[in-house]
Amino acid sequence: MNIIEIIEKKKQGKELSTEEVYFFVEGVTNEEIRDYQTSALLMAICLKGMSHRETYDLTMAMRYSGDVLNLSEIGRTVVDKHSTGGIGDKTTLIVEPVMACLGVPVAKMSGRGLGITGGTIDKLDSIPGFSSDVSDKDFIRLVKTVGMVDAAQTRNLAPADKKLYALRDVTATVDNLSLIASSIMSKKLASGADCIVLDVKCGSGAFMRDEESAKALAEEMIEIAVRAGKKCTAVVSDMNRPLGYTVGNALEVAEAVMFLAGVKQDLRLRELVITLCNEMYVLSDLYDEKSDVSSDDIRKQITECIDSGAAYKKFREFIKAQGGVLSFIDDLLAASTESYESGNSPIMLSDYDGYIEEIYYNDDDAAVIAKMDAETIGRLSLLLGAGRLRKEDEIDYGAGIVLNKVVGDYVEQGDLLATMYSKKKRSLTKAKRLFTEAVTYTDNEEFSSEDIIIDIIKR
Amino acid sequence: MNIIEIIEKKKQGKELSTEEVYFFVEGVTNEEIRDYQTSALLMAICLKGMSHRETYDLTMAMRYSGDVLNLSEIGRTVVDKHSTGGIGDKTTLIVEPVMACLGVPVAKMSGRGLGITGGTIDKLDSIPGFSSDVSDKDFIRLVKTVGMVDAAQTRNLAPADKKLYALRDVTATVDNLSLIASSIMSKKLASGADCIVLDVKCGSGAFMRDEESAKALAEEMIEIAVRAGKKCTAVVSDMNRPLGYTVGNALEVAEAVMFLAGVKQDLRLRELVITLCNEMYVLSDLYDEKSDVSSDDIRKQITECIDSGAAYKKFREFIKAQGGVLSFIDDLLAASTESYESGNSPIMLSDYDGYIEEIYYNDDDAAVIAKMDAETIGRLSLLLGAGRLRKEDEIDYGAGIVLNKVVGDYVEQGDLLATMYSKKKRSLTKAKRLFTEAVTYTDNEEFSSEDIIIDIIKR
Repeated sequence: MNIIEIIEKKKQGKELSTEEVYFFVEGVTNEEIRDYQTSALLMAICLKGMSHRETYDLTMAMRYSGDVLNLSEIGRTVVDKHSTGGIGDKTTLIVEPVMACLGVPVAKMSGRGLGITGGTIDKLDSIPGFSSDVSDKDFIRLVKTVGMVDAAQTRNLAPADKKLYALRDVTATVDNLSLIASSIMSKKLASGADCIVLDVKCGSGAFMRDEESAKALAEEMIEIAVRAGKKCTAVVSDMNRPLGYTVGNALEVAEAVMFLAGVKQDLRLRELVITLCNEMYVLSDLYDEKSDVSSDDIRKQITECIDSGAAYKKFREFIKAQGGVLSFIDDLLAASTESYESGNSPIMLSDYDGYIEEIYYNDDDAAVIAKMDAETIGRLSLLLGAGRLRKEDEIDYGAGIVLNKVVGDYVEQGDLLATMYSKKKRSLTKAKRLFTEAVTYTDNEEFSSEDIIIDIIKR
Repeated sequence: MNIIEIIEKKKQGKELSTEEVYFFVEGVTNEEIRDYQTSALLMAICLKGMSHRETYDLTMAMRYSGDVLNLSEIGRTVVDKHSTGGIGDKTTLIVEPVMACLGVPVAKMSGRGLGITGGTIDKLDSIPGFSSDVSDKDFIRLVKTVGMVDAAQTRNLAPADKKLYALRDVTATVDNLSLIASSIMSKKLASGADCIVLDVKCGSGAFMRDEESAKALAEEMIEIAVRAGKKCTAVVSDMNRPLGYTVGNALEVAEAVMFLAGVKQDLRLRELVITLCNEMYVLSDLYDEKSDVSSDDIRKQITECIDSGAAYKKFREFIKAQGGVLSFIDDLLAASTESYESGNSPIMLSDYDGYIEEIYYNDDDAAVIAKMDAETIGRLSLLLGAGRLRKEDEIDYGAGIVLNKVVGDYVEQGDLLATMYSKKKRSLTKAKRLFTEAVTYTDNEEFSSEDIIIDIIKR
């Protein structure tokens, strides 16, 4: 077997054998195959595709290219939740304590953000004292005692995927269904979960721009999971506009806190949280035990868990257990609640060490916000310093944008639309221009916006 | 402009602009574009193709990536001849002195062989004393005094092509018409010829295996030449079996000497030589001057030039002018003539410092040779040491094979089929097996073999 023959075979559109796929992934891992050969094969894969079997083989080969976690010590079914990445997606911060509160163990490895997409670990790291660097021993202990843990992927998980991903990024070979699906699933399968609920984002701020391709990606990932003997459900959700009303790390933590504390809940965010929790519950061992539980019962349990403050209590317990300073959360909530109740921007990072810029609506005609383009808001937020353009870039945890008005809201001249936070004063002008580009207005007050849940796919 | 966008554009099957093609080639030349990006683009080109305009732009960008020779000092129309490469192709060694003898200046830069394909410079370098390293000044001087010169490409001709070619070889991106055509033509256009006659080989021993693709390559190269304002004719010739009866550097020089001295001439080789000379003559300034010359006249001039020994005289003058030891040629001819006349192997490298192995026909039934697969004979010859697997490999100039019987010949039990020369004793056994694989026999004595000339394409 040699890599040139493998590239030639894929170039001709033929199906690679399991041995050939493993030969390729092993060669990438131990650097025997050169980058220029890998990128040629990646391009051939982009243009000629891969069968389900090849995609599964690629996933498993990458999964086994590094450490594979064994979570059996937890003694319970571990249900993982993964988002394909969106703008303002703080769902995990809310879903995790809800699940832990319901009694479903949460043992999660999360990633950092890159480009316009945020990462859960960056959000958690914005909390002073919080440590996402958890030892193997503590990982299991926290799941058993607190009921939940969220740690950064410091282990050597799927190193082949890391190499391929870095190469795809600079060779225009990112947007292939098999490559995307295998990249996500190799990491999920290496991190030891028994069941997986996928939140497949769809729209301008997501990797998959239209429903068709988002559903196809969902199907491909479920196909991999089924072949690997894992239960998997995919929720396809809208990402044409930012999720909730904050984008930025500490700002999103503040929104999650307000959500869990019941101060303010974006309705679409609430709907997505409940849907994801519901699907996770159904895959859990609790559901197996209580097979007579109705779907209404589950939804009721979830909403009660949120509305009673029990999930918020669990969230505080989790933050404290991983070293986070609770007074930061308290201050965040107090400042936010105050500014929200006074009708100002709903969240105020009162002690933000940087520039704060408010954006007002200046048009003469009253109007309704019809669109707020997620990708543009994502780029704006990246510009403010809330994200990384390159892996090695530093993040400004306080940077980002708070949306005072969202899609569907009626605005009058002089209304505060949004507040931007940044340490880079010069970025504010360009960010403001991006905001103007992102927003479209309509005169139609009956305007109805898209549902957050597009589809739920399972087998 | 950035390379990732250019790769993406080609991946989507779109036509690259002239600026984009030049940006790519310049980036390859100055190494600002990384190999893994280049190979991804090459694969996209293989799978999505290039328009004639893109192919022309790629050719010109590569042509201008290094030195471009100016042969105007010669003061005559320079007609170049190029073969796409075959097994036993010693045509250039014969065509050049014939053209010089006719009065058409020959100012040629030749390459070295790689893989199963031989190179003219390697063949000439097998002559003791011969120097293919010619200064710019001597190059012009030799054309003016001797009427011909053949020098190795020591200059920095089309360095971008060199880089792309090396990368294509290890990324399964060789077999694309636009890439092959632009690679050949960029070097031809950089080496300063005014008119080009292409010998496009077609068959198992050639890059283009079937007539359709060989003709398509010929058309693509003519298209480039026309766009570049050069006259160009393509002769498509058969390469399903070795050309002539020798494969190997000194052995092919010996065959050329026997051909020019009139001792033995393979008929197909003679037909190809005359055809190529004819097309070169038609493109030359002599033809422009004598517009009343008939095609019969030209053919007559060419054959007279060969058969009178005038071309052989010119050949000896050329070898001597570039430092070659004429006694080597004399000895080669004497030994070959002797062994040919005694009915043994037609050429005997009498003082060969290595192993000599003869192959006899052992079958009971008398038969006619129906096929002798060119590729297999090429591999056999490479194995014996006559060629290079890698650029840095050394060649055994005396190694190779002499075919005592060729396609169409009637053979009886015990007949000498071929003689192999090699310094690697262990290779002889495997080479012998390859020879057996290469040859197919038929009982049909009326068997008619393919014509050497498949097509002549011009505009």
